[in-house]
Amino acid sequence: MSDIVRIVEVGPRDGLQNEKSAIPLDAKLRFIEALVSAGLQEVEATSFVSPKWVPQLADADVLWPKLPVGPLFSALTPNLKGLDRAISVGVDRIAVFTAASETFTRKNVNMSIEQSIQVFAEVVEAFRSKHPDGWIRGYVSTAFQCPYEGRIAPSQTRKVVESLFSLGVDEISVGDTIGVAVPIEVKALTTMLRDSLPFDKLCYHFHDTRGTAIANVAEAMEQGVRRFDSSAGGLGGCPYAPGAGGNLATEDLVYFLERNSISTGIDLYRLAAASLEILKILGRPASAKCQVASFSASETCPM
Amino acid sequence: MSDIVRIVEVGPRDGLQNEKSAIPLDAKLRFIEALVSAGLQEVEATSFVSPKWVPQLADADVLWPKLPVGPLFSALTPNLKGLDRAISVGVDRIAVFTAASETFTRKNVNMSIEQSIQVFAEVVEAFRSKHPDGWIRGYVSTAFQCPYEGRIAPSQTRKVVESLFSLGVDEISVGDTIGVAVPIEVKALTTMLRDSLPFDKLCYHFHDTRGTAIANVAEAMEQGVRRFDSSAGGLGGCPYAPGAGGNLATEDLVYFLERNSISTGIDLYRLAAASLEILKILGRPASAKCQVASFSASETCPM
Repeated sequence: MSDIVRIVEVGPRDGLQNEKSAIPLDAKLRFIEALVSAGLQEVEATSFVSPKWVPQLADADVLWPKLPVGPLFSALTPNLKGLDRAISVGVDRIAVFTAASETFTRKNVNMSIEQSIQVFAEVVEAFRSKHPDGWIRGYVSTAFQCPYEGRIAPSQTRKVVESLFSLGVDEISVGDTIGVAVPIEVKALTTMLRDSLPFDKLCYHFHDTRGTAIANVAEAMEQGVRRFDSSAGGLGGCPYAPGAGGNLATEDLVYFLERNSISTGIDLYRLAAASLEILKILGRPASAKCQVASFSASETCPM
Repeated sequence: MSDIVRIVEVGPRDGLQNEKSAIPLDAKLRFIEALVSAGLQEVEATSFVSPKWVPQLADADVLWPKLPVGPLFSALTPNLKGLDRAISVGVDRIAVFTAASETFTRKNVNMSIEQSIQVFAEVVEAFRSKHPDGWIRGYVSTAFQCPYEGRIAPSQTRKVVESLFSLGVDEISVGDTIGVAVPIEVKALTTMLRDSLPFDKLCYHFHDTRGTAIANVAEAMEQGVRRFDSSAGGLGGCPYAPGAGGNLATEDLVYFLERNSISTGIDLYRLAAASLEILKILGRPASAKCQVASFSASETCPM
């Protein structure tokens, strides 16, 4: 396993989707361009979901053609209708999502897990007919715990991961959606997934809700995982309370990797600037630890 | 090594010392009482430092006699003058502090490390003559990195730890004062300290400035360390930017330990309530991840 770690930036989609006030298209594009110029090479840019459900991303069709050329952009396509819209504007990297918890899936998308997998089978097939070499990501959320069902057995998560992987997706992103996991749980699940899919197809999507995200990254790295989702400025991922940690902040992930002598190619200052600009537009405080930490000599107060 | 972890709550001293506006004595006492009733058993309550340097803790002499009976309270006594004040109000658990960085020590207390150790030798001797069985803690800050000198070699930190320990102190608290360390550094330093002092005399004082504190706790636990400092609500520890993580929040530490099936005897809800009350008085946002995370069913938004 190499020491190259790949970061998938989910801020523009996952980070913005729950924002109530409409963010101007230009601001979104500036945010994405700033992320790219900070060095991020894989960005989930938007979602072709029904504007009724996620009004914030209703501009996906106009945003996509304006994205800069070069980086790998992807978009969420939860169903055939969304896929049609995505394909019509040239999307060749898509993502679908389900969950490890039956109750969560039902409440979230009003389907059973199996039904959601069937929908994705159609999406995958339709996508492959247009883009045989296109790239598909599958999300499995609530992989450790569900807010309704409580803890999810690793064997249950494995079952869903395997179902999704068997559709022919290129990568699975396994999410600690409510941010409760600790390293021993990451070790147990990772060990269980070892036979289900090659490790270069496994990505973790940690939330820092209770401060455990970097500890979980460290453990996953120890187990051989080299792909992680994160969101610039810690945007998104259940912003139920101001200042509450949702998504693992890309800043914190980059800091951790670089301090471990793993070069990410990402400029932390530019990244922090990108986050600060969008946070200002959203009127939200930063939740990335690194993002609000000064990297200057002002860090001089005593212990 | 047992699975009993001891938490030293430093919020009332380290957390409050840099607050500019005077906090009423009653509010401090209510904070301490709330921490105790949440289950914390070791609390650094105040500092007998010159009121000129730390005006916020100028009320140490009146606060101490009003502390509840039962828990283990300690106080910082940086010099003989402070020690005299402390002894006169009945303090029998003291703490002294120096740093692993020569420059930091000089800027912070205007002495060389060696001079600071000499001062502590006198403090320790004077304290022991009054309280032969009293308890003494020594802090070694900037143990991983100094804001002026950059990285500190583990061998340098060991030298200071050994000097301080040889004075006959009962415990050393080793601090990542600017919150930069990652687990490999914790492993390297802990390995180096293995021959310097018994592990039940070693405590880590991590800062979560860049989101790495819990990962560092996990690594230290892996190495056999079972004592950690933390501060309720993440108070203190260089509040140079609103929302910036300073001290590891006690809430996050307790959550992590409890999720690892290590019983702390601390009630997370009561602890969070204690933090919220003092944060309200300070007009500061919470920086504990757990503290702002809801533990209720409101955590239901999708990944």
